[in-house]
Amino acid sequence: MKAYELAEIVAGRVVGDHETQIVRIAELDQAREGEVAYVDNEKFFDKAVESKASCLIVPPGVSEKFQDRTLIEVHNPKLAFALIGAALHPPVRREPQIHSTAVLAANADVALTAFIGPHVQIGENAHVGAYTRIEAGVVVGANVKIGDDCVLHPNVVLYDGVSLGNRVILHAAVCIGADGFGYVRHDHGYQKFPQIGTVVIEDDVELGAHTCVDRAALGRTHIGRGTKLDNMVHVGHNCDIGERVVIAAQTGISGSVVIEDDAVIGGQVGFGDHTRVQKGAVIGSKAGVLPGKIVRPGIWWGIPVQPLDQYKRQNAYLSRLPERIKRLEQQLADLKNR
Amino acid sequence: MKAYELAEIVAGRVVGDHETQIVRIAELDQAREGEVAYVDNEKFFDKAVESKASCLIVPPGVSEKFQDRTLIEVHNPKLAFALIGAALHPPVRREPQIHSTAVLAANADVALTAFIGPHVQIGENAHVGAYTRIEAGVVVGANVKIGDDCVLHPNVVLYDGVSLGNRVILHAAVCIGADGFGYVRHDHGYQKFPQIGTVVIEDDVELGAHTCVDRAALGRTHIGRGTKLDNMVHVGHNCDIGERVVIAAQTGISGSVVIEDDAVIGGQVGFGDHTRVQKGAVIGSKAGVLPGKIVRPGIWWGIPVQPLDQYKRQNAYLSRLPERIKRLEQQLADLKNR
Amino acid sequence: MKAYELAEIVAGRVVGDHETQIVRIAELDQAREGEVAYVDNEKFFDKAVESKASCLIVPPGVSEKFQDRTLIEVHNPKLAFALIGAALHPPVRREPQIHSTAVLAANADVALTAFIGPHVQIGENAHVGAYTRIEAGVVVGANVKIGDDCVLHPNVVLYDGVSLGNRVILHAAVCIGADGFGYVRHDHGYQKFPQIGTVVIEDDVELGAHTCVDRAALGRTHIGRGTKLDNMVHVGHNCDIGERVVIAAQTGISGSVVIEDDAVIGGQVGFGDHTRVQKGAVIGSKAGVLPGKIVRPGIWWGIPVQPLDQYKRQNAYLSRLPERIKRLEQQLADLKNR
Repeated sequence: MKAYELAEIVAGRVVGDHETQIVRIAELDQAREGEVAYVDNEKFFDKAVESKASCLIVPPGVSEKFQDRTLIEVHNPKLAFALIGAALHPPVRREPQIHSTAVLAANADVALTAFIGPHVQIGENAHVGAYTRIEAGVVVGANVKIGDDCVLHPNVVLYDGVSLGNRVILHAAVCIGADGFGYVRHDHGYQKFPQIGTVVIEDDVELGAHTCVDRAALGRTHIGRGTKLDNMVHVGHNCDIGERVVIAAQTGISGSVVIEDDAVIGGQVGFGDHTRVQKGAVIGSKAGVLPGKIVRPGIWWGIPVQPLDQYKRQNAYLSRLPERIKRLEQQLADLKNR
Repeated sequence: MKAYELAEIVAGRVVGDHETQIVRIAELDQAREGEVAYVDNEKFFDKAVESKASCLIVPPGVSEKFQDRTLIEVHNPKLAFALIGAALHPPVRREPQIHSTAVLAANADVALTAFIGPHVQIGENAHVGAYTRIEAGVVVGANVKIGDDCVLHPNVVLYDGVSLGNRVILHAAVCIGADGFGYVRHDHGYQKFPQIGTVVIEDDVELGAHTCVDRAALGRTHIGRGTKLDNMVHVGHNCDIGERVVIAAQTGISGSVVIEDDAVIGGQVGFGDHTRVQKGAVIGSKAGVLPGKIVRPGIWWGIPVQPLDQYKRQNAYLSRLPERIKRLEQQLADLKNR
Repeated sequence: MKAYELAEIVAGRVVGDHETQIVRIAELDQAREGEVAYVDNEKFFDKAVESKASCLIVPPGVSEKFQDRTLIEVHNPKLAFALIGAALHPPVRREPQIHSTAVLAANADVALTAFIGPHVQIGENAHVGAYTRIEAGVVVGANVKIGDDCVLHPNVVLYDGVSLGNRVILHAAVCIGADGFGYVRHDHGYQKFPQIGTVVIEDDVELGAHTCVDRAALGRTHIGRGTKLDNMVHVGHNCDIGERVVIAAQTGISGSVVIEDDAVIGGQVGFGDHTRVQKGAVIGSKAGVLPGKIVRPGIWWGIPVQPLDQYKRQNAYLSRLPERIKRLEQQLADLKNR
C-alpha cells in the first residue's frame, strides 16, 4: 500500500512522498525499507530520526525534525499504527470449508461461508455464523450459538448451550461453560450444586489462550461487548463482566462477581465471591479483593485492596518508622539522664 | 415431577398441594410457574413470599409465613435443593457408542455401555468402565484404568498408566499424569529427574477445567475419594490429597505436599514442597505456605500463613500504630517542655 | 542392566558384586530386589542400610557402612541416579508412523523417522524433524519448524510460524504463539495492537502442561537452550528468557520481560512488563516484580521483591515492634510519675 492510502485509513496527513510503498509494520530500530514505524514520545525522536523505516507515523507539528522523510501526521500515532497494522496484516482468511474429518450433527446450522477445520465436532442444533473460522480440534456442544466473523483457535471447548456474539476471538484451548464450582456439604461429603445455567459472550470479546469461563449455576455468566481477557483467566459461575473491561493474565474471579464497564484489572488478581468493581476502577496486579467488597472508581492496590495512595502512604510510613522509633528512644534516654 | 415425589427424595414434608407439578429449579426472584426454589435464611423470607415459584423448599416451622403455597419442609433446604436439582436435571446420558472417528487400541477394554465420542484416542491395554462417557478429543494413554460412570469432558488428556475410580468427573482439558517438575543441576545445565511414577484418583472426585495433576517421580500422586478441585489447580508430583478436600481455582501445590481429609483451601493459594495440611484445616485465598510447614487445624491466612486471628490482631495493631506513636511523641514533647 | 554397566554411565566405581542385575530405580524405603536407590545425605544412611535395594548409589568413602552390599560410588549420587534412571527407563519410542487420521498439508515436510499420532494436524509448509514424536490431537500451524527428537504431548497447539529446536519436550496442551495481549484504547473501546511476530524455542527446552508462550507483537518471543518451565506458566509477548532458566508452576510473565541465563524462579511469581532479571538471580515463590524493575543477582522475596535478608530483617523488626513500643510507653509513664 502507499503512504497516502495508509493515511486515509487513520485520517492522517502525509508529509513528503505520498506514493511511498509500504508492505509491513515494524519497530523503530528494526525497521527497514518498505516498512512503517511510529513514534509518539519525544524521548524517542532521536531514535526515530535514525530509523530506516520508509515512513514514520508522528504526532502533528514535529515534521521539521524529520527532513526528507515520508511522514503520516496524526493525533494518536500508536492507535494509527495499530489500525495501519491491521490493514497491512489482515488476519488469515480461510476459504469456506467443512473439513472431511469434522463431525457435524445433522441438524447443526453452519453458514455456507464458515470454515470448519479438521477434527472439529459441532453438536446438535448448534449455529455457526457467516465467515466464522473454527480451527482444528474445537468442540462445540449442543445448542451453542456462534455469531459471524468469529475465530475459534485450535482445541477450544464450548459446552452445551453457550452463546457467542459476532467477531469474538477465542484463543487456543479456551473453555466456555464448564460447571461452576458449587457444592453443599453434608454428613458424608459434598453434593454437587446444580450447574444448569449458561454463558453469554457479547460482540468483539477476545479471550486469551486457556482462559476458562464457567456456566452459571442458574441464570447466566455474562461478558460484555468489547471486553478483552488475557491468557489463563478464570471466570467463575454467574459473573457479570461489563463492556470494554481489560483483565490481564492469570487473574481469578470467584462466583457472582460483578465488574462494571471500562474497569482495568492487572494480572494474578484474585476476587472473592460477590464482589463488585465499579465503572472505570483500576486494580493493580496481584491484588486481592475480599468477598462482598465494593471497589469504587480509582486506583487500587494490595492484599486486601486499598486505594493506591493510601497503600503508598502506609508503605512510606512503615519505611520511616524505625528511624522515628529510634529517635523516640534516644530522646527518652536523654530525658532520663537529665 | 410432583411435589410429593421431590419431597420423598429429600425425606421432606409437603405442606399444601402434594400434586403440584415441578419441571425446573430456579432462583427465588427468577422463579416462575412450574419451578421450585429454596430459602434457608430469614433475611430472604419476604423475597420468598413474593417469589412466583410453584413450590418452595423451606426449613421446618415457618409454614404459617407462606399461606396457600406448596412447601417442602426439610432441615437443610440448600442441600435438598441440590438433590432435587440433580433429580430434575440429570446429567446428559449418551447412548452407548464408539464413534467411527475414535481410535482404539486393539486390546483396549471398553465396556459395552460406555460412550466414546469423536476423535478420541484410547491407548494399549486401557480399561474404560461401564456407563463412562468420554467426550470428543479426549486422549487416554496406554494402561490407563477408568472406572464406571465417569465423565471425561472434551480434550482431557490422561498420560500412560494413570487410574481413575468410579463417578470421576474431569472437565475440559484436564491433564493427569504429565511429568513432575524435577531436575538435577550439573555443570552444563539440568538433567531431568526420572518421572516414572503414576497418578491414582479415587471415586467421586471432580476436577475443574484445565486442572493438572502431575505423575509421581517414583510411587504415586494420589487424590482421595470425594475431593473437589476447581479450575486450573496445579497438583505437583507425589502429592497426597485426602478425602473430601475442596480446593478453589488457580491454587498451586508443589511436589510431595500432603493435604489431609476435609481440608478447605481457597483460590490462588501456593504450597511449598513437603508441606502438610492437617485434617480439617481451612486456608484462605491467596495464602502462601512455606516449604515443609505443617498447617494445623484451624483457619489460616496470609503470606506466609498464620492463624487468622493472629493475622487480624496484627493488622489491627498496625492500623492503630500511627496514633500510638504520635501520642508517644506528644507526651515526650510535653515532658521536655516541663 | 548390570551394576558395572550402570557405573560406566556415571563414571562411578562399583563396590561389591559387579554383576548385580538391576531393572528399575526406586526410593530407598520402597526399593526391592532388582532395584537401585541412592543416598547422598548422612541423615539417611541408616535408612539406606535397611533398604532392600539390590544396589545403592553412594558418595565416595562411605562403603564400610554398607557391608556386603553392591554400591556405586560417585560424587553426585542424585545426578547419577537421574542418569541411571534415564538409562533404565528410556522415554517411550514410537515406531515411525503417520496415523491415517492425521491431516497433513501436501507440502508439509515430515521426517521419515517421525511419529505423527491420531487426529494431528500439520499445516502448510511445516517441518517436523527426525525421530520427533507428535502425539494425538496436536495442532501444528503453517510454517512451523520443529527440530529433531522432540516430543509434543497430546493436544499441544503451535500457531503459525513458531520454531522449536531439537529435543524440545512440550507437555499436554502447551500453547505456543497465541496473540500477545496488546490493545490501544480509543473513544469507543480497544483496537487490537498487531501481533505479527513469532516465537523461537531453543534446544533442550521442556515446558510443563498448559504453559502458554505468546508470540511477539513484532520481532520474537524467545526461550533459550536448556530452560525448563513447569505447568501453567504464562510467558507474554516479546519476552526473552535465557539459557538454563528454571521457572516453577503458575508464574506469570508480562510482555517484554528479560530473564537472563541461570535464573531460578519460584511458583506464582508475577512480573510487570519490561522487567529484567539478571544472570543467576533467584526469586522466591509468590514474589511480585514491579514493571521496569531490574532484579540483580542474589535471592529475592516478597511483593514487591526485595533482597531476602532485607525482607527477613524487616519481618524481624516488625515482630519485635510491639514489645519495643510497650517499653517506650512504660518508660515514659515512669518518667511522668517521677
